[in-house]
Amino acid sequence: MAQPTVVDVNPPRGTRDFPPEEMRLRSWLFDNFREVSRSMAFEEVDFPVLESEALFIRKAGEEITQQLYNFEDKGGRRVVLRPEITPSLARLVIKQGKSVSLPLKWFTIGQCWRYERMTRGRRREHYQWNMDIFGMPKVRAEAELIQAIVLLFERLGITSSDVGIRLSSRKVLQAVLDMYSVPQHLFTQVCVIVDKLGKLSREEIEKELISTGLSSEAVQGIIEVLSLKSLSKLEEVLGSGVEAVADLKKLFSLAEQYGYSDWICFDASVVRGLAYYTGIVFEAFDREGELRAICGGGRYDRLLSTFGTEDVPACGFGFGDWIFWQLLKEKGLLPDLPRQIDDIVFPLDEELEGPASSVASCLRKKGRSVDLVEDKRLKWVFKHAERINASRLILVGKSEWERGMVRVKILSTREEFEVKAGELQ
Amino acid sequence: MAQPTVVDVNPPRGTRDFPPEEMRLRSWLFDNFREVSRSMAFEEVDFPVLESEALFIRKAGEEITQQLYNFEDKGGRRVVLRPEITPSLARLVIKQGKSVSLPLKWFTIGQCWRYERMTRGRRREHYQWNMDIFGMPKVRAEAELIQAIVLLFERLGITSSDVGIRLSSRKVLQAVLDMYSVPQHLFTQVCVIVDKLGKLSREEIEKELISTGLSSEAVQGIIEVLSLKSLSKLEEVLGSGVEAVADLKKLFSLAEQYGYSDWICFDASVVRGLAYYTGIVFEAFDREGELRAICGGGRYDRLLSTFGTEDVPACGFGFGDWIFWQLLKEKGLLPDLPRQIDDIVFPLDEELEGPASSVASCLRKKGRSVDLVEDKRLKWVFKHAERINASRLILVGKSEWERGMVRVKILSTREEFEVKAGELQ
Repeated sequence: MAQPTVVDVNPPRGTRDFPPEEMRLRSWLFDNFREVSRSMAFEEVDFPVLESEALFIRKAGEEITQQLYNFEDKGGRRVVLRPEITPSLARLVIKQGKSVSLPLKWFTIGQCWRYERMTRGRRREHYQWNMDIFGMPKVRAEAELIQAIVLLFERLGITSSDVGIRLSSRKVLQAVLDMYSVPQHLFTQVCVIVDKLGKLSREEIEKELISTGLSSEAVQGIIEVLSLKSLSKLEEVLGSGVEAVADLKKLFSLAEQYGYSDWICFDASVVRGLAYYTGIVFEAFDREGELRAICGGGRYDRLLSTFGTEDVPACGFGFGDWIFWQLLKEKGLLPDLPRQIDDIVFPLDEELEGPASSVASCLRKKGRSVDLVEDKRLKWVFKHAERINASRLILVGKSEWERGMVRVKILSTREEFEVKAGELQ
Repeated sequence: MAQPTVVDVNPPRGTRDFPPEEMRLRSWLFDNFREVSRSMAFEEVDFPVLESEALFIRKAGEEITQQLYNFEDKGGRRVVLRPEITPSLARLVIKQGKSVSLPLKWFTIGQCWRYERMTRGRRREHYQWNMDIFGMPKVRAEAELIQAIVLLFERLGITSSDVGIRLSSRKVLQAVLDMYSVPQHLFTQVCVIVDKLGKLSREEIEKELISTGLSSEAVQGIIEVLSLKSLSKLEEVLGSGVEAVADLKKLFSLAEQYGYSDWICFDASVVRGLAYYTGIVFEAFDREGELRAICGGGRYDRLLSTFGTEDVPACGFGFGDWIFWQLLKEKGLLPDLPRQIDDIVFPLDEELEGPASSVASCLRKKGRSVDLVEDKRLKWVFKHAERINASRLILVGKSEWERGMVRVKILSTREEFEVKAGELQ
């Protein structure tokens, strides 16, 4: 017979397995995402992880569309392991059409993929919690989304001295471009370029901006505005009649009413890297400045028309799990989630495997979680009970069984007694 | 500006979106999978949906490996959207190595993919609930898995007159092959061929078997044994010393103790299509005979050595969601799962949007699910409350708010009263 190949026991490069301990943590986090979404009255939706490439083709030079995990299927169709979920959400909103009443408040938790040739330990997948609102033109929508993010942080023990949320509006850039009469079609491209401010040097950014056709005055105007960290300064520069200023002021005033002012700050340099944002943009960051953005979002009122239909005002955020695990670890906020079982049923004799089966079966039907153990020594069973945090050990022994009884041991108190098998609860 | 392309609003062919109503059903089903798995003391695990193709390369001519959704990634690696989850489970067991104590009882719920060129309405993805036990050589493991399946059916209102579980053992075929001195290396291939008995004609099956090199006596022997539907007949043909018979008898006797004898029946024609099964195999079927198998599983004691490591006895099952939805629908067992919200907060006046924010925020922090509605007429709000099954409507009105009060309306009783905003629970 041919020698079997030794398979690689690791999952594909840049991807993760979730063995039980890690799966418990993941479920804990996702349950928290769900609980917060539920408290905000959002409904859960889901989409295939595989989408048509056409959904993600955008020409603004975003990083996300340059790292598509795309390929051709056997039928010659261009498909992609989705890099983000917003386009799928928008697709479903269009598909549902008039059958749904606006506003829609949807959330989803799903895996997203990217492919870079040069990896160096970077990840090819992460899970993302998305919350999106369709059909609310006012900044109320952004205020709601930010409350959801803050509620999540608070539930998990993260405080506003650990994490902040920077926000601005793309309308700030729009106003500057208007001041210099920059043509409208350059807007998205400019946003995508200035988003790289932290990663590239100021000179490189300026060069890229100039190459789009902007005058050097306009470039200087943009760079200056982006350095602003106060709303009143922004108002001075742009004037108070500007939409950007009105939106931001409104959002800060709502924040006070919600009670999360401590968490947010204005920062004109926040632009976010996705092409389709049009208004308020925001991102959560660790105040120690060690990590990349924890989540990011914004308003995208003109995405649907790029898909060939009428626009619907929309905004949302994506909250990835990778960076967030690091934050939770650093802050010592990862919970201890041991395995937990109600009962271990153990026949003391091989010929009692039948009775042990009925005992286990009965308890399971009553809703208890029951581990049926066989062919081990009693010593092993006790150790096992400790390892899996069992509450009770139920021993099926010959002499007891003949009297219709089983022996119960409460593991926390070491209390031991006999119970009629049929009366076990 | 360029005319935008109209994107296809449907997900890729053969895949599904889950809008809110369908997502509620899916979560309900998956929660039931989880509850049953928990009651059996299984731990949840997960794997990337993308795996190395090498994990699924088997030479036995199975349908599953002929329909791989595989492709080459940009780094030239052969990868696949997994068609099933067992190989990933086995990979993780090998990876965990000595750090885990046997037996392992793991479950997972995940999406699986396949690609056929000729589709005709067939699906390219489904979700699968898998339960697997590693390190239990005895049929106790199979008995436990079958209990899990029965527990699930019972929870959802399916009875043993709706659904049955056919079972047999591949050792039956092994014994027949031994009788005719068929070489061992043909075993898997023969299994994969005879699994097609329902789909292909008897003549075609015979031809395929002959082409592997079997004598026509052996082929007749196989076909005869496969038609047996009683264990005592099987014992007559194979003799009682044969492992296949002993295993099956044991399993039927355990089934009686568990209390699920009504659900199971011996049927020698059950072989299952996966190459790696070695012992007991089983499948659940609707007794009306309208649907394909609802779930299938079996023992696969020699899978790990095909991956180049030491074998560990193992068995498990996969339970897909597609066929099961059909069954639930036919039996009228799909639950009615409307949207449900605790409170709607509605400011009666635009200038009360601030107070409405604090009211909503407070209630959410107390764990209630709160929909904050604005810019609608009161009539719309009442309709909306009905549509989403809200329990209470909380109206923030000017004169009440000046006194620090809000108006509460209990929607089921139409009862209405004022409450101090700070005392809302």
